[in-house]
Amino acid sequence: MLQEGRTRPPIRIVGVSDSSGGVVCKGGRGLPLSDLLRWKMEGKSMCSFVRDGVDHYDSTIEMLSAAAVRGNILFDGTPVDLQTGGMGLECCRFGAANGIHLVLANKAPLVLAYQELIATCKEEPACCIEFSATVCGGLPVVNVGRRDLSCARIDMVQGIFNSTTNYILSRMASGEDASVALRTAQEVGIAEADPSLDLQGFDTANKLVIICNSVLNFPAKLSDVDLTGITDVTSTDIQDAAVNGEVIRLIATATRRVDTPSTGAEVSSSSTSTSTSTSGLYALSVKPTRVKDNSFFGGCSDSDMCVVFRSDEFETISMKTDEKGVFPTSCAMLRDCFGIIRSIQNNNN
Amino acid sequence: MLQEGRTRPPIRIVGVSDSSGGVVCKGGRGLPLSDLLRWKMEGKSMCSFVRDGVDHYDSTIEMLSAAAVRGNILFDGTPVDLQTGGMGLECCRFGAANGIHLVLANKAPLVLAYQELIATCKEEPACCIEFSATVCGGLPVVNVGRRDLSCARIDMVQGIFNSTTNYILSRMASGEDASVALRTAQEVGIAEADPSLDLQGFDTANKLVIICNSVLNFPAKLSDVDLTGITDVTSTDIQDAAVNGEVIRLIATATRRVDTPSTGAEVSSSSTSTSTSTSGLYALSVKPTRVKDNSFFGGCSDSDMCVVFRSDEFETISMKTDEKGVFPTSCAMLRDCFGIIRSIQNNNN
Repeated sequence: MLQEGRTRPPIRIVGVSDSSGGVVCKGGRGLPLSDLLRWKMEGKSMCSFVRDGVDHYDSTIEMLSAAAVRGNILFDGTPVDLQTGGMGLECCRFGAANGIHLVLANKAPLVLAYQELIATCKEEPACCIEFSATVCGGLPVVNVGRRDLSCARIDMVQGIFNSTTNYILSRMASGEDASVALRTAQEVGIAEADPSLDLQGFDTANKLVIICNSVLNFPAKLSDVDLTGITDVTSTDIQDAAVNGEVIRLIATATRRVDTPSTGAEVSSSSTSTSTSTSGLYALSVKPTRVKDNSFFGGCSDSDMCVVFRSDEFETISMKTDEKGVFPTSCAMLRDCFGIIRSIQNNNN
Repeated sequence: MLQEGRTRPPIRIVGVSDSSGGVVCKGGRGLPLSDLLRWKMEGKSMCSFVRDGVDHYDSTIEMLSAAAVRGNILFDGTPVDLQTGGMGLECCRFGAANGIHLVLANKAPLVLAYQELIATCKEEPACCIEFSATVCGGLPVVNVGRRDLSCARIDMVQGIFNSTTNYILSRMASGEDASVALRTAQEVGIAEADPSLDLQGFDTANKLVIICNSVLNFPAKLSDVDLTGITDVTSTDIQDAAVNGEVIRLIATATRRVDTPSTGAEVSSSSTSTSTSTSGLYALSVKPTRVKDNSFFGGCSDSDMCVVFRSDEFETISMKTDEKGVFPTSCAMLRDCFGIIRSIQNNNN
C-alpha cells in the first residue's frame, strides 16, 4: 500500500508469460491485472488465458518480441539458471538491445553477464537496469551500496544473504536435525523444493557476485568465490561453537586486498576451509563461520538476512531484515520500477 | 576516497563563509580548496582570507547573494537555531527561491520550514533539496525511507538518533556518573560544548520531525512530539533495568494511529512519561525507554545510532551505524551533492 501523499505512477501490463507461453493485449489497452492474478492463483497456465483482444505466444521471448516497445519495462522473475542464464538472460539481452528498461529478481543474468548487460543498456537506445530484488529481498543492499556509499571506498562487505541456510543453522542450534529443519523450511515456504543452490552456497555466492559487480565495480565471476556451503556442518560443530558462546552462520565476504585493515571486527574464527581466491582487488568467500552469539551476525537468526559495509568515509553501516514472506522481494521490483518511471518523468520535464 | 570505476563529478567552490563573513572568487575560477582547509584548521576566520581575485563580504547571506548562480549548490552546515532558523534558514530560503540546489546538514531549516522549502524548491526556477546528513550522519535513513520504501505504507519508525545521549546512557550502565560520562563525551568530541539540545532530547526530536515530513509525508512540527530527554534518568533507573536484563535507550518513535499493530515488538516497557500527542496520522514520542540488552536497540551502544522501519510490504528493515568521527556526516553531504549532479547530468543527456 502506498504511503499518504505518494502517487502511484501510471502502469499498464502489456504482456505476461509463464513457462507455458505468454499473452499480449492488442492495441495497448493493458491486460486485466486482477484477472491474471486470480488465474495464476487457481494454478492455471498463461497459454490457456483466453480473452477478447489477447494474443497468445508459445514462449516468453516470443511474447516479449510482440509486446516490445522502447521505454517499456521488463520484469524478469524467471528461475535461476546458472548454466546458460536461461530464458531470463535471453529476454534481458533482447530488452537491453531494444531500449526496454530491465527490473530483475532473477540473479542469473547478472551473475553470468553483468558487464555485458550494463554495456548494452548504455548504448542507444539506452535503458535503465535495476535489480535491488536480487540481493536480500526487500533490504536495499544494492541501492544503498550503489547510491548512498557512492563517495566512499569500500574496504569490506560481509553478510548473511540466504534465509534458507540461516533458518536451518538456527534450528540446528536449537537441537533440530538438519534434515528436519530443511523439511520445516520447505513447509513454511522459505526453502525451494530443490534447495541445493541454497545449501551448497551458490545462492549466497550469486548475491556476492552481484554486489561485487554493481557496488564495488569489481567484475567478479562465480568462479572467483571461495565457496563452502552448509552441507558438511554437523550438530557437533554447532555444539562446539555454543560452548564458546558462538553460533555458525553462512557468511559471504568481500575483502579489499590493498589498503585494507587485515581483520574484520566481527568474525571471530573461520571454518575449516581457509583458502581464498588470490586474484583481483577483493578476496571473495562464502563459508560457514563462527561468530559470537551476541554479535550483529549472531543476532541475525532464523530467516533474517543482513549486510555490513565497512568503508573509509562512512565507517561501518549495518542493515538487516527479518522478512518472512515473498512480498518484500516483489515490492523491491516495484520500487525499482517506480524509480525508473520517476527518472523518466524527471528527464521529460 | 572514491571506489574504483567511479568518477568524481566536476565541482568548483565559488564561495565560502563562516560566522565572520564570506569570500567569493571573481570570474568563476573557483577558490583553492586545500588553502581554505588549511586556513580553517589553523583557526583563522574567513574574513581574513586574502587572495588575488577574492572578494570579501560581511555575512553569509551577502556572500551567497554575490556567488548565487542558478544551478549552483548551497551547502548549509551552520549551527542549529530552533528559535528563528538563523542564517541557515535565511540562506535556504534565498537558495530555494533562486533555483540554487540545497544540501543540508543543518536541521533547523527543515524542522521549522520543511513544507515551505519543499514548495519553493518545486516552483520555477526549480531546484533539488537533499538532507541525508541531517539524520544519523552517514546512515542513509532519509534516503532509504524516501526512495527504497517508496511503495510501502510505513506503520512505525523507531530509532536511536543521538550519539551523545546514547554514549552517556551506555557509560552510566558501566557504572560511570552521568556528569563524568558527559565530560568524557565532550573530550572525545562526541558531545557539543553546550549539550542541552542533546540531553533534553531536542536533537532526537528534530530528526524525528524531519523523518515525518520527508519519509512519512506527515507535516509534523516539533510541538507534536511528546518529548522527554535523559536529564532525569538516574543510576538507580539504569540499575533497576539491568536487574531485568534491560538497558535504557533514548528512543524516538512515530507510530501510525490507523491500521497499525498496537504493539512494537522490540520495546518492552516505557518510561514514566506515558502520554502521547493525540492529533495527526502518527503518534510521535522521544523518551528514555527500557529495552532488552540483547535486542537490536540494546545492541546499539556507545556512540551507535540506528533506525527500524516497519512497513506493510517490506516487514521490518533495521539499520545501524557505529561511526565515531565527523567524516560520515560530511561525506553524507557529498553523496547528496553527487546525487544532485548525477540527476542534472541525466536530465541534460
